[in-house]
Amino acid sequence: MQQVAVAGASGYAGGEVLRLLLAHPQLEVGALTAGGNAGSTLGSVHPHLTPLADRVLEETTVEVLSGHDAVVLALPHGHSAAIAEQLPDDVVVVDCGADFRLRDAQAWTTFYDTSHAGSWPYGMPELPTAEGKQRDALAGATRIAVPGCYPTAVSLALAPGLAGGVVSPEDVVVVAASGTSGAGRSLKAHLLGSEVMGSMSPYGVGGVHRHTPEIEQNLSACGAGDVTVSFTPTLAPMPRGILATCTARAVPGTDAAQVRAAWETAYLDEPFVHLLPEGTWPNTSSVLGSNCVHVQVTLDERTGRVVVVAAVDNLAKGTAGAAVQCLNLALGLPEATGLPVAGVAP
Amino acid sequence: MQQVAVAGASGYAGGEVLRLLLAHPQLEVGALTAGGNAGSTLGSVHPHLTPLADRVLEETTVEVLSGHDAVVLALPHGHSAAIAEQLPDDVVVVDCGADFRLRDAQAWTTFYDTSHAGSWPYGMPELPTAEGKQRDALAGATRIAVPGCYPTAVSLALAPGLAGGVVSPEDVVVVAASGTSGAGRSLKAHLLGSEVMGSMSPYGVGGVHRHTPEIEQNLSACGAGDVTVSFTPTLAPMPRGILATCTARAVPGTDAAQVRAAWETAYLDEPFVHLLPEGTWPNTSSVLGSNCVHVQVTLDERTGRVVVVAAVDNLAKGTAGAAVQCLNLALGLPEATGLPVAGVAP
Amino acid sequence: MQQVAVAGASGYAGGEVLRLLLAHPQLEVGALTAGGNAGSTLGSVHPHLTPLADRVLEETTVEVLSGHDAVVLALPHGHSAAIAEQLPDDVVVVDCGADFRLRDAQAWTTFYDTSHAGSWPYGMPELPTAEGKQRDALAGATRIAVPGCYPTAVSLALAPGLAGGVVSPEDVVVVAASGTSGAGRSLKAHLLGSEVMGSMSPYGVGGVHRHTPEIEQNLSACGAGDVTVSFTPTLAPMPRGILATCTARAVPGTDAAQVRAAWETAYLDEPFVHLLPEGTWPNTSSVLGSNCVHVQVTLDERTGRVVVVAAVDNLAKGTAGAAVQCLNLALGLPEATGLPVAGVAP
Amino acid sequence: MQQVAVAGASGYAGGEVLRLLLAHPQLEVGALTAGGNAGSTLGSVHPHLTPLADRVLEETTVEVLSGHDAVVLALPHGHSAAIAEQLPDDVVVVDCGADFRLRDAQAWTTFYDTSHAGSWPYGMPELPTAEGKQRDALAGATRIAVPGCYPTAVSLALAPGLAGGVVSPEDVVVVAASGTSGAGRSLKAHLLGSEVMGSMSPYGVGGVHRHTPEIEQNLSACGAGDVTVSFTPTLAPMPRGILATCTARAVPGTDAAQVRAAWETAYLDEPFVHLLPEGTWPNTSSVLGSNCVHVQVTLDERTGRVVVVAAVDNLAKGTAGAAVQCLNLALGLPEATGLPVAGVAP
Repeated sequence: MQQVAVAGASGYAGGEVLRLLLAHPQLEVGALTAGGNAGSTLGSVHPHLTPLADRVLEETTVEVLSGHDAVVLALPHGHSAAIAEQLPDDVVVVDCGADFRLRDAQAWTTFYDTSHAGSWPYGMPELPTAEGKQRDALAGATRIAVPGCYPTAVSLALAPGLAGGVVSPEDVVVVAASGTSGAGRSLKAHLLGSEVMGSMSPYGVGGVHRHTPEIEQNLSACGAGDVTVSFTPTLAPMPRGILATCTARAVPGTDAAQVRAAWETAYLDEPFVHLLPEGTWPNTSSVLGSNCVHVQVTLDERTGRVVVVAAVDNLAKGTAGAAVQCLNLALGLPEATGLPVAGVAP
Repeated sequence: MQQVAVAGASGYAGGEVLRLLLAHPQLEVGALTAGGNAGSTLGSVHPHLTPLADRVLEETTVEVLSGHDAVVLALPHGHSAAIAEQLPDDVVVVDCGADFRLRDAQAWTTFYDTSHAGSWPYGMPELPTAEGKQRDALAGATRIAVPGCYPTAVSLALAPGLAGGVVSPEDVVVVAASGTSGAGRSLKAHLLGSEVMGSMSPYGVGGVHRHTPEIEQNLSACGAGDVTVSFTPTLAPMPRGILATCTARAVPGTDAAQVRAAWETAYLDEPFVHLLPEGTWPNTSSVLGSNCVHVQVTLDERTGRVVVVAAVDNLAKGTAGAAVQCLNLALGLPEATGLPVAGVAP
Repeated sequence: MQQVAVAGASGYAGGEVLRLLLAHPQLEVGALTAGGNAGSTLGSVHPHLTPLADRVLEETTVEVLSGHDAVVLALPHGHSAAIAEQLPDDVVVVDCGADFRLRDAQAWTTFYDTSHAGSWPYGMPELPTAEGKQRDALAGATRIAVPGCYPTAVSLALAPGLAGGVVSPEDVVVVAASGTSGAGRSLKAHLLGSEVMGSMSPYGVGGVHRHTPEIEQNLSACGAGDVTVSFTPTLAPMPRGILATCTARAVPGTDAAQVRAAWETAYLDEPFVHLLPEGTWPNTSSVLGSNCVHVQVTLDERTGRVVVVAAVDNLAKGTAGAAVQCLNLALGLPEATGLPVAGVAP
Repeated sequence: MQQVAVAGASGYAGGEVLRLLLAHPQLEVGALTAGGNAGSTLGSVHPHLTPLADRVLEETTVEVLSGHDAVVLALPHGHSAAIAEQLPDDVVVVDCGADFRLRDAQAWTTFYDTSHAGSWPYGMPELPTAEGKQRDALAGATRIAVPGCYPTAVSLALAPGLAGGVVSPEDVVVVAASGTSGAGRSLKAHLLGSEVMGSMSPYGVGGVHRHTPEIEQNLSACGAGDVTVSFTPTLAPMPRGILATCTARAVPGTDAAQVRAAWETAYLDEPFVHLLPEGTWPNTSSVLGSNCVHVQVTLDERTGRVVVVAAVDNLAKGTAGAAVQCLNLALGLPEATGLPVAGVAP
């Protein structure tokens, strides 16, 4: 058993990492740290983590986190770099925050308005790239940046079309719906249950959402050219789940069979990304709590657009599941070890 | 008080018409008819309509419906024509079904796969058209086709941009989320609460949803050219409400102020369509139960796309509210009489 | 038109009062005041109140509130007395807070832990009492205390049985579920949508909820003896609505017909309290947004207990609807004027 | 690896058994059978069970089910006996239906209105009984009746008080809320998402719910005397979860410490039943998807009643989790093998 510490254990992402570690046969929960909740029991902030209910949250310090085989950082954006640079090089560090995702310092500054901390290997093994799969960049890595939740859904949805040459990089349009846990545990009026239930609303409209450059970075890496995405996220009345509806223009002359073949090829051997049978569309509850992505694609011949829809659990595959998958890769375990493949439905 | 009969009173649309009529100062509920539920009390199918709980549903016949000032048809698609043609010419008939919405017989046949019954004046008073507003076609009409719920949200969202010359008719992309009541009261497994709650899913993907030609008809009427829409509806875990996220390419050279001006101009004097203050985006609960449409628009300069979001209640302004608004126009009452302008929130 | 000012207009209760006033034919919205939100537009806190979106919230002062025919106080508990005592005697004041509900100063101090402000006539017209109906105490009143939401559901559920002599005052047990708006707009983690959706939880267990003495006061007034209630509230994953499941021991020898007769007698002529047809049980969505209470009762012969279930909208009949009903009575209008009797369903 | 067949795999209970088996290290999914869905892929009815998506459902026959180490029956009530009696004696059979739960043939006939099939050892290992724990009756059993979902929550909530002599068997009152999956996948209008979301409603009121005699059987087995329960179930707007609010009269002279001690003693060493820290109350999302029961208890000194609240996942510990726990016991595996102890929250 290898020991994994979790920094930021009191948030939703940290809690989900712990839930997955509890079911993992070869990783063990080590130190748990928090900010304002340090000193509390884990049970007081995450009553669902029954076996860890009596564990006490410690302060997030290098001393507490060192001495583990791996550390998962589940901190607010901008807090990872200071901790990460002090952790020993041989400790695997997986960062659920955004800090090390973007390679382009200017894009970082534009969207996050702070100085760029640098970039780490990007933890989305299944992503088709111009050279193969992103997995290849993760072997032996000791620092990995876990992708954002929206970028997970959108990039895995669209990349096969770009890598496979069947859709055009111009004029990609994405509208995605997310459960409220994507906004974290912040106390804001618009996140109250009374306001959320029975209501849908957009936010970050007009290309200002911080996941936009990350999506564009991933899709541009497919080698089909620079991609600029019109991305509109919406808040949906559910605790978890992302449904990303993505459309891109079909390359002229492409037929439906070629479209489907591009996605089939991309995900044929992937344990977690499933192209559904033709005619079946994803729903978010089917992947709830699991590390799976469900994808379906079609060619709308009337408009000449390919429409791809992907469903992920924003906290599982969208954050904590990806983190554990990266831990597996970095620690030399089979990539799929201990990760749930069945959703919790209905 | 003028008398209004409702055919199809046991469905969700019929029930909502009755809820609005109960609060209307100048219209009175007349005969109520149903299909399979004929003989039941209204209370057994719509317990929320407390004052009408003891009314008995009658068979849907011309005899029962005649003798009213107006009849609202809330029947399944394809059932309105047979009844409508037998009703006296001087009885106002407002059809909540799709039967008389499309002017293009071929579009009807393609999407509905039956023969075309013809078309009636289209009951969306606020819709900007090449000539002015659609309201002008409704004065004195005794037959009116109530718009579909998605077309209401999408057409009112996009038409000002097309009529105002700031967006291009090519490559319009719409993704809309609807509450489950949009699917009616049909007993299908995917509409069960257990399957719906906590889940989002798309349907009718790839341009096959029947509201597509209706949206295109409305937007093409703006005079900016023929519009073809990539339209993807999704089912959201809420009983009511539509959130339509619509994007279209900005006409080159258009700036943000011109974009906003187009929408301001279109809806300046409309009692039910509200362009929200800049920076505020619609949510569906704010219009729940009301006849209002909330709209916001922005120009995404990175992608050159205008993004417009509209929220409506699919059963209220999206169906029954529009029906009562049309009744008001047809019966010579002030257009806004008796229609709720405040949503039921939180 | 008589003018009504609303103090505390930015909360959920204040917002609902405004929604009802907007539909009221003889009352007009006057000054709107708030605490921390003073200076904001109403649209920024209640986007659903479309026609009032541009109204600016003022500070809550006697000067602003005076000069109206009536003032509705929708302030946090403990804030009403200071304002109320400064308002002119001839201004009708209706208090949605708890401050003036309890007649027993010691019960107040035990449950609210502050000094008792006194009591006002209790605004539940339909409540059966030993002498008749509570309505009789409200004619001509210029100060009225609006009941709490749980007490509305529970008292109207059980009082007919006590007043009618068919249930015993000993060992009354109530378990009630409330939508989250009952907790107001307070920013607490357990009220976040992520925590609330898909979850039920109890709170205030063991007789400590502040509505307990109010329920006991109402039920004891039925003349059947002092009532002590085991009351457990639970938080349900819905924005609005209370479902109160109430049981009391049947008086020995009572049969099912006598039980039903007690409730029929109590509510025969009430416009807002409806005993449903036998075999039909209430649901909260049927009364959503309306001023109605739906009630059903049965005798469980196996256990000798009468089970009564009542459904109300906690914000409508449970707070703001009752406030408007009291305004009607105090201002000399017919009691039911302008109050919605149909729920917003589905 | 031992092989487990699942009969009735297309229902919610069968699907949940499969989800748990997929994560079980020593049990393997064998044949899957269904009724009307025979011939379909599992993916078409349970898209969340990704790894089994291509498995085809077979007819439910003895031939198909024999030849496994164990069979789980997840059939409609009344269908288990015919299959069970034909299965070889050495095949472990665990029945998720009600058929073999009740020992009293007359109670069966009264509540189920068919002839009694007999009774099997009752699969609730943690239940305190007059002799110790129900677990003792399960060692070596090859036929086990899985408890009902409500009886799981209610019996585990109340039994410690009866077995420990601190509450009285007379006048037990229970009100429980269940998620909609408890009603199965039946196509009924009141289970549609449109009707369920935002609404709570009672059903089976007055002691007629079929789980009543099962609860009474369990509680009477505690040795404190015959128990008659006033049981009211309610339907809550969530897919899963039961919150049972249970009250019983404290034995005179009992103090709060004695009450707590009774529950502490009962569940000290139980892996799945957790008495929460004082002051913390259960919520259903904390046990979602897990085999845990969360319990809290208090003494309401004002009313002399003990109030106990238990939360379970009706499909997991309430059905399929118990089934797997029973499989573990019957097949000689450690009781907790492979069962999730952390809930899926938020």
